[in-house]
Amino acid sequence: MILHGYWRSSAAWRVRLALALKGVAVEQRPVNLVAGAQRSADHLARNPQGLVPVLEVDGAAISQSLAIIAYLDERFPMPPLLPADALGRALVRSAALIIAADVHPLGNLRVQRWLRDDLGADDAGVTRWLHQWMGDGLASLEQFARQHGGNCLYGDQPGLADICLLPQLYNARRFALPLEGFPRLLGIESQLAATDWARSSHPDNQPDSP
Amino acid sequence: MILHGYWRSSAAWRVRLALALKGVAVEQRPVNLVAGAQRSADHLARNPQGLVPVLEVDGAAISQSLAIIAYLDERFPMPPLLPADALGRALVRSAALIIAADVHPLGNLRVQRWLRDDLGADDAGVTRWLHQWMGDGLASLEQFARQHGGNCLYGDQPGLADICLLPQLYNARRFALPLEGFPRLLGIESQLAATDWARSSHPDNQPDSP
Repeated sequence: MILHGYWRSSAAWRVRLALALKGVAVEQRPVNLVAGAQRSADHLARNPQGLVPVLEVDGAAISQSLAIIAYLDERFPMPPLLPADALGRALVRSAALIIAADVHPLGNLRVQRWLRDDLGADDAGVTRWLHQWMGDGLASLEQFARQHGGNCLYGDQPGLADICLLPQLYNARRFALPLEGFPRLLGIESQLAATDWARSSHPDNQPDSP
Repeated sequence: MILHGYWRSSAAWRVRLALALKGVAVEQRPVNLVAGAQRSADHLARNPQGLVPVLEVDGAAISQSLAIIAYLDERFPMPPLLPADALGRALVRSAALIIAADVHPLGNLRVQRWLRDDLGADDAGVTRWLHQWMGDGLASLEQFARQHGGNCLYGDQPGLADICLLPQLYNARRFALPLEGFPRLLGIESQLAATDWARSSHPDNQPDSP
């Protein structure tokens, strides 16, 4: 298996977290998003969307981080990334999608560029935009954690929702979102950040990190 | 089971399609998004995000359409919404996420409002924005259909990806996106639109449609 990613891509980081949690090794091939390598013919052949991550496996290329992670969870079931019961699985998936669907795509590099280039947003406008959607999503997750969480977003076992949370909190800090309203999320983050699997997956510890 | 939705919400429509395809009946309760009912205390208690759809089941409330649909697919397995093999499942999930993560959240009502109210976008600016992300996502799906599709986006059995496609094409027309570049997608749509399950799920045939 080959993972095409980028050190600071939230979505690629999610896949690294799933792999590390399961102890599965893959070959990592960096795609330099800032240099535009995602628009190269090679990468577009793997993923017409021109996004990372992409997992190459068995002659196929799987895109979309949550699809890759679901695939990994089926092929390498231990430890599982979802609870054993159907309702628990639904709740964890919904928490993951709050970030993966309603927060992260709105803050993507290509979206920020469009806000500036087409709509004339300045730095302050882009920051308000990012804070709006990150703040909204994290507030929902904080409530989720209050209702369902323990050491992790759902109970005490790290899983799909936590995998989405860690990169989003990193992103929030990168864009200076105040985080004091999310004590539960910060508590979960500090528990998880100390683990080997979270440390080895962190952007700062990737082959292409500066 | 109670489905809280809205006739023209793409995400609620996806859930209706899954239910209808499986022949599962639920009680539908409309949440009038234009009137702001999604911000009512009742609805926020069900879903702190203030979005539809929400499925109430066994005393719990599940939000996020793809989480609801995955739950339904586990509880009512026939007909399945994903292929039998792990790679096929990964590909169908990735196609669904192209729409559910990278297209639809960017065109949401609350996002359109922010573009206007905070960034000062005019009608033309909002339209360019919507066309950019819809066009980009549908182009990726057209390639996906060319590679993996038959009568449906993946082979000949309707599933999760088709469930995401139908509402997105409706949205594209609503915002006048030119569709002639997507012949495969239009072919799949016309096949599926003629089925009973697609017809009964259509926004025009809901209790709250005008």
